[in-house]
Amino acid sequence: MTKLWGGRFSSQTDILAAQLNASIAFDWRLAPFDVRASSIWAEELAEIGLLSSEEHQQIQRGLEQISSEIQDQSFQIKPDDEDVHTAIERRLFELIGEPAGKLHTGRSRNDQVMTDFLLWLREAGGILENALREVQQALIDRAETDLGLMIPGYTHLQRAQPILLSHWWLSHFYPLQRDRQYLAFLLKQANLCPLGSSALAGCPYPINRFRLAQKLGFDAPMPNSIDAVSSRDAAASFLFFASLVSVHLSRLAEALIVFSTTEFGFVELPDAYTTGSSIMPQKKNPDMLELTRAKAGTTIGKLTGFLSVLKNLPSAYDKDLQEDKPAVFSTFDSLSLILPVISGILRSLVVNPSKLSAGLDPTLLATEIADFLVLQGIPFRKAHRLVGELVKECANQGITLLQVSAERLAKIHERLPGQLNRLLDPHLAVERRSQFGGTSSESVKTQIVQAREMLHKLY
Amino acid sequence: MTKLWGGRFSSQTDILAAQLNASIAFDWRLAPFDVRASSIWAEELAEIGLLSSEEHQQIQRGLEQISSEIQDQSFQIKPDDEDVHTAIERRLFELIGEPAGKLHTGRSRNDQVMTDFLLWLREAGGILENALREVQQALIDRAETDLGLMIPGYTHLQRAQPILLSHWWLSHFYPLQRDRQYLAFLLKQANLCPLGSSALAGCPYPINRFRLAQKLGFDAPMPNSIDAVSSRDAAASFLFFASLVSVHLSRLAEALIVFSTTEFGFVELPDAYTTGSSIMPQKKNPDMLELTRAKAGTTIGKLTGFLSVLKNLPSAYDKDLQEDKPAVFSTFDSLSLILPVISGILRSLVVNPSKLSAGLDPTLLATEIADFLVLQGIPFRKAHRLVGELVKECANQGITLLQVSAERLAKIHERLPGQLNRLLDPHLAVERRSQFGGTSSESVKTQIVQAREMLHKLY
Amino acid sequence: MTKLWGGRFSSQTDILAAQLNASIAFDWRLAPFDVRASSIWAEELAEIGLLSSEEHQQIQRGLEQISSEIQDQSFQIKPDDEDVHTAIERRLFELIGEPAGKLHTGRSRNDQVMTDFLLWLREAGGILENALREVQQALIDRAETDLGLMIPGYTHLQRAQPILLSHWWLSHFYPLQRDRQYLAFLLKQANLCPLGSSALAGCPYPINRFRLAQKLGFDAPMPNSIDAVSSRDAAASFLFFASLVSVHLSRLAEALIVFSTTEFGFVELPDAYTTGSSIMPQKKNPDMLELTRAKAGTTIGKLTGFLSVLKNLPSAYDKDLQEDKPAVFSTFDSLSLILPVISGILRSLVVNPSKLSAGLDPTLLATEIADFLVLQGIPFRKAHRLVGELVKECANQGITLLQVSAERLAKIHERLPGQLNRLLDPHLAVERRSQFGGTSSESVKTQIVQAREMLHKLY
Amino acid sequence: MTKLWGGRFSSQTDILAAQLNASIAFDWRLAPFDVRASSIWAEELAEIGLLSSEEHQQIQRGLEQISSEIQDQSFQIKPDDEDVHTAIERRLFELIGEPAGKLHTGRSRNDQVMTDFLLWLREAGGILENALREVQQALIDRAETDLGLMIPGYTHLQRAQPILLSHWWLSHFYPLQRDRQYLAFLLKQANLCPLGSSALAGCPYPINRFRLAQKLGFDAPMPNSIDAVSSRDAAASFLFFASLVSVHLSRLAEALIVFSTTEFGFVELPDAYTTGSSIMPQKKNPDMLELTRAKAGTTIGKLTGFLSVLKNLPSAYDKDLQEDKPAVFSTFDSLSLILPVISGILRSLVVNPSKLSAGLDPTLLATEIADFLVLQGIPFRKAHRLVGELVKECANQGITLLQVSAERLAKIHERLPGQLNRLLDPHLAVERRSQFGGTSSESVKTQIVQAREMLHKLY
Repeated sequence: MTKLWGGRFSSQTDILAAQLNASIAFDWRLAPFDVRASSIWAEELAEIGLLSSEEHQQIQRGLEQISSEIQDQSFQIKPDDEDVHTAIERRLFELIGEPAGKLHTGRSRNDQVMTDFLLWLREAGGILENALREVQQALIDRAETDLGLMIPGYTHLQRAQPILLSHWWLSHFYPLQRDRQYLAFLLKQANLCPLGSSALAGCPYPINRFRLAQKLGFDAPMPNSIDAVSSRDAAASFLFFASLVSVHLSRLAEALIVFSTTEFGFVELPDAYTTGSSIMPQKKNPDMLELTRAKAGTTIGKLTGFLSVLKNLPSAYDKDLQEDKPAVFSTFDSLSLILPVISGILRSLVVNPSKLSAGLDPTLLATEIADFLVLQGIPFRKAHRLVGELVKECANQGITLLQVSAERLAKIHERLPGQLNRLLDPHLAVERRSQFGGTSSESVKTQIVQAREMLHKLY
Repeated sequence: MTKLWGGRFSSQTDILAAQLNASIAFDWRLAPFDVRASSIWAEELAEIGLLSSEEHQQIQRGLEQISSEIQDQSFQIKPDDEDVHTAIERRLFELIGEPAGKLHTGRSRNDQVMTDFLLWLREAGGILENALREVQQALIDRAETDLGLMIPGYTHLQRAQPILLSHWWLSHFYPLQRDRQYLAFLLKQANLCPLGSSALAGCPYPINRFRLAQKLGFDAPMPNSIDAVSSRDAAASFLFFASLVSVHLSRLAEALIVFSTTEFGFVELPDAYTTGSSIMPQKKNPDMLELTRAKAGTTIGKLTGFLSVLKNLPSAYDKDLQEDKPAVFSTFDSLSLILPVISGILRSLVVNPSKLSAGLDPTLLATEIADFLVLQGIPFRKAHRLVGELVKECANQGITLLQVSAERLAKIHERLPGQLNRLLDPHLAVERRSQFGGTSSESVKTQIVQAREMLHKLY
Repeated sequence: MTKLWGGRFSSQTDILAAQLNASIAFDWRLAPFDVRASSIWAEELAEIGLLSSEEHQQIQRGLEQISSEIQDQSFQIKPDDEDVHTAIERRLFELIGEPAGKLHTGRSRNDQVMTDFLLWLREAGGILENALREVQQALIDRAETDLGLMIPGYTHLQRAQPILLSHWWLSHFYPLQRDRQYLAFLLKQANLCPLGSSALAGCPYPINRFRLAQKLGFDAPMPNSIDAVSSRDAAASFLFFASLVSVHLSRLAEALIVFSTTEFGFVELPDAYTTGSSIMPQKKNPDMLELTRAKAGTTIGKLTGFLSVLKNLPSAYDKDLQEDKPAVFSTFDSLSLILPVISGILRSLVVNPSKLSAGLDPTLLATEIADFLVLQGIPFRKAHRLVGELVKECANQGITLLQVSAERLAKIHERLPGQLNRLLDPHLAVERRSQFGGTSSESVKTQIVQAREMLHKLY
Repeated sequence: MTKLWGGRFSSQTDILAAQLNASIAFDWRLAPFDVRASSIWAEELAEIGLLSSEEHQQIQRGLEQISSEIQDQSFQIKPDDEDVHTAIERRLFELIGEPAGKLHTGRSRNDQVMTDFLLWLREAGGILENALREVQQALIDRAETDLGLMIPGYTHLQRAQPILLSHWWLSHFYPLQRDRQYLAFLLKQANLCPLGSSALAGCPYPINRFRLAQKLGFDAPMPNSIDAVSSRDAAASFLFFASLVSVHLSRLAEALIVFSTTEFGFVELPDAYTTGSSIMPQKKNPDMLELTRAKAGTTIGKLTGFLSVLKNLPSAYDKDLQEDKPAVFSTFDSLSLILPVISGILRSLVVNPSKLSAGLDPTLLATEIADFLVLQGIPFRKAHRLVGELVKECANQGITLLQVSAERLAKIHERLPGQLNRLLDPHLAVERRSQFGGTSSESVKTQIVQAREMLHKLY
């Protein structure tokens, strides 16, 4: 037995064309799901009398055999196996003969492959959900460990205002929470069973699609057989999910790359997560963070490419849809590697407190003076300008705000203390931001409590 | 008054740099939302005593004046207005003088612009939700009107099996339902208030962020001030939503373009939605469908571009984030034009029943013979091959399946009727697919009922 | 021996991090080029006395041994081989011991990998250049074979004007010619040698980079060592080249998919390049053309993803650059499969002349009447309107332009013949377009001659 | 007069559909090119007698009038003008009546719009070519001015080896040279005239397309009329060119953003090219560099989107092609703003020599020790390991390489000097890299000479 569809054809497929057409190189990971769906399908065929009890038992035994061959990697893929479905049905023939030919009754590869894919996606989603939660957990743990450490907060990569390092760690927690929310959404939305849609028009035998769906762990059958075989929304949504996660991780990675330069020196990356140079003996390179950053680009490309594949497809099923699998599988592989690496880096990097505090120069506290003036009734806009001019003077004179004379300060406002030490104390500045979501210790502790709860729920 | 931040600077901004930097050309549509958020912000400043009652009233009166200037388009944007926020604060100064300078107390453009954007997004989302529902409604109505008409179902753009035209219309309903589900998800996820996060570290004054959020219609404040100013997940999600919708519409558009060729002739597009040629007097071109198709490409590009912008951004707020608005706004504009055009086309196109039925040649029914053989106990795989060979013979002899001799049929299986008319009746073939989700009349009517309900709920 | 850079490190690389970091899975195809560049590098080291004659001979013998192991696929990759360079140097150690440690003198993996890549690119470019020329050749041959056949020309997928089928085939020749021009450009632009740039600062030993470049077949050394190790313009250009080719092929594929529908029926695809359905015995699906179309999307995604990777990279060499290879290699593989498949399809598809001529209905000739009126001095704009109205009348009355009464025609213009047969003869209409580039037989024959010449030159 | 094609239509275009269809909002910038091409076209119509001398003169006078209305912006666009071509022909009617109707003889908007576009592209290309050269000039000038300054060279954003700052500036020169090479290539490739191709089949009147091409400044006519109206390769190539330029600039911008942080402090950006914060008076933000970086993302998206639009288009001209203009024009606008801003920044930024030299810590010179050992005959691989271990020891002991004891050094190699000062002198290390393309003063001066020459030639 060769192709599943040879009857109508007079000549063989061209060898390069066959190579272009074959998907077995990348769809083999669907094998366990294909066996499982086939087993349930056989059950339903038996229920409606299209398989005799004996045939049914033969098929189940054959599938069990195949299942263990898949698991222990002894399954032999043959050159003529164009895809995972063909390979498994071919093997079933070898094992049980004629009855194998009854398994494909009432189904088509069109509904079969989508069913396999969704079963895989559910499992893959679970793996990534856990890996994401691990990163979130590491961020919370860091936030707790590092409580008390201040760091310059940056905008435009320029020092802006002092913040708690813990506050910064947590700012990377929430995007991942949104990613988990989206993952849950997309898995739920995709949890409808395509099987029983056949090629596109529906199944001509009285299969109970609701029971079938339930047995395979779906919430319900897909309600329109054409949509069931032609939609790749689940794949596209997965790629967008992966893009968002990678973009979030790339932002964290970029910051850590900058923070671990000699110049910033805020953190040191552990040997286990850096590499050396083949030529410069002193180098410790943040390769893992750079690859994390790079994979964001690659993943965006996978999403883009697949959306572009989908665009304009006219019919229920077009072969173009086959491009879903290389894109989704390679993205899954890369993400399921990156996430634990990031967890590992977060857990093992070393913070350098002296470098952090060296970064808190008085200029970062300029806003505090403006805020003080506001409390004296000066409009913020005017206060901002007055302080801006003061900062410029300091820069010109090469002094810090702490060195401004009492006279100069008095000219700005009579109530300004003659010495700004207390006003420009970064610790007090941090604690002043005590509203919900702010950077004060209290606010951050509240976030930590909330974040721990969110690990086990979505909102 | 010129820039909001001039104090610290010694020289003017370069004129081309200022042009590159300015966002007023594309962020002006945030103006009404900016006024609304400012008005509520002033209320909260008054609550905590940072505005006197009189100042508060002046500000509110000024904002009302500005609001009506925005509405009647008499607001004058000046060359120095770098963005919508600056323009409005500048105008407030002109109207009420000094107290205007107090409005920016405790907030920053970083939290302000995200608040404005999310308020806009909520409104834009509502508009698109309605427009999507209109397209869905049009599809259901078509499905109801066209009940009884059969059409060849296609896979690979090759005739596959007969289906009900109504079944096909509905296959375009469900993707849009998923789009509405996703839109609802993203709007809910984004419904947290950034205001009160200030530049990145949180607000130093005792603003009640929960009340603030509530007044602006948000579910709660965003829980981390850094995340609040740096996240553009809502914009990215919107662009993905728009990409999915456009891809779905591009597939419908492509099919209708093909169906309205002279060769297929299944539908005729109304004059109101086609254009002519400047040189060929006979042409009626499906420009609107082609543009619908093309916009899918452009929208994918907007999504890609913006994800690529976001990638690698290290700090809380980087100016790069400003690229969210041209991408999102142009995508909204194009989608809010395309959706009603598609509704219009669906409602006014004319189906050509004679062309439809001409397409239902007996070859489409080949699977029926195989299915018949299965019911006689022949394995499907074998039945498929037998029929495949028969089809090939017919093609070689230039006859249809209806012209095969009784002898030849008997050779395949003794129970095969000598005349295949009834077995190859497309109507019966359609009605055989009566399982949930199949193409039979009953199944389609069930879908129509379900679909009508889904118009007013998400699942 | 394990990593090339272990000296400075206290602890082992994390196992997942190592997996993320390793590129051997995808860079192994550089092996023969790495050996070749190493061999030349060793020669130059010997020239300047950094290798003794004996060491040099040992290294060359070792490299020859490795070369044959690569060729006969007996080379054993070990788990610790992080990339192709490491693997080969590790093997060299096994074969010749200590002297192997001298090969990496004065070079870095940064300049090494780019040299290998460009050597590979030159070869890959040659393969694709030939494959492209084969497709062009097939198009010209078709144009010659099909001379005399007319086909409706389409705009907006609506019948527009009759053209020669050969003219249409040739319209797909010229885009590929531009692709070959661009390929030649990018290969020439990239033909500068990075070797001798070391990590980023240049080589501290008196290597003659011009001789080195020449021996490796480059035009010259790259003129700036930082640019040499950080540029990936060649990879990006290759991906754009591949995107353009794929887009061009996707347009041809799409047209052939449409032309091979039952409804159009202009061409029949050979069995060798179609596949069947697992469920519908009558199906012949244009899978290869659909995959050609789909790969355009995937390739666009590879380009996008890689450009997005490159964006924002700050230093000479960042690890992100490693993403060039999976993108470029997978794109090359897919293109080098698609091109010969398309050639095969072009050479073996069967044109159906009766379907072609059935498509040439008189309405396509409406412009001819307008053109006739122009020659009588009527402004084209007015002629267009008069004929437009005539076409509308015909459509309303259900007649063709050939059936319009002489009276009606006389009302348009006195000189219009009472019978339009000759004016509406598609053959004459085609021959009227005899200017350079037009669809007349003469013009098409001129194109064929020109195209044959262009096969062996670029412009 | 309304549409150019109304004759065949019974009802008006739907108002939203008309809005979707209209391109006048973005194609108006083609107006001067449309007038110029029309003027030449009229000349050719007169040559072959399709315009009388009087008609020709009327048309030319009308076009001159329109030309000046375009120039002084007094041209009134009307609601019914769907595109630039319609608007101009409509205006010509108003000015000269009936003869205006003869201008469109033998041409179609399909060939007309491509001709206009290519004329625009040639001009736009020239503008960008100059702006690119200005940036290159600024880089060379900086390289000359900054000769003598050393800076740490980075890989992986980790300090690697000392280099000349001038060498680094020049590393950003060469990518832009490649961009100019590519721009020249694409403009030459695109310099073929589409006019005379009509809708798709060629022109039925004896127009001399070679003379026409020549008058419009093209090298020749396009050789296939279908290709002439359906190719958008020039637009796609332009978008790729812009993507490459933006990616190159984004890498420079990213480096300058990092270099201008307080922590690095290598450069200070001038006030004229930075902006302030609305809330933090001390901030000086590199907004222009961030926008330069961000525009790379947006431009990649435009390229992606447009390639995705092109993919799968089946016929000669499909309306989808209209999406070329918004993509290309917005990209041109943004690039023609960014390039001079970058030139301005390069010319006005201030380098901080003390920060540069502070960055040259001895660790960067570790490779020098390894290189020294190589000259003593120790295999590089072994030397690398020995020095790596030394670096690790130093880090553990908190000392620099300069503080290593003579005993310890002797253990590595007897010839190692007891004091490493001279070996670790960054100046000497830089000068050692004196091969072509290396970072030594001589090599850099050679580059400067070469680069100045390259400003006025391509290779």
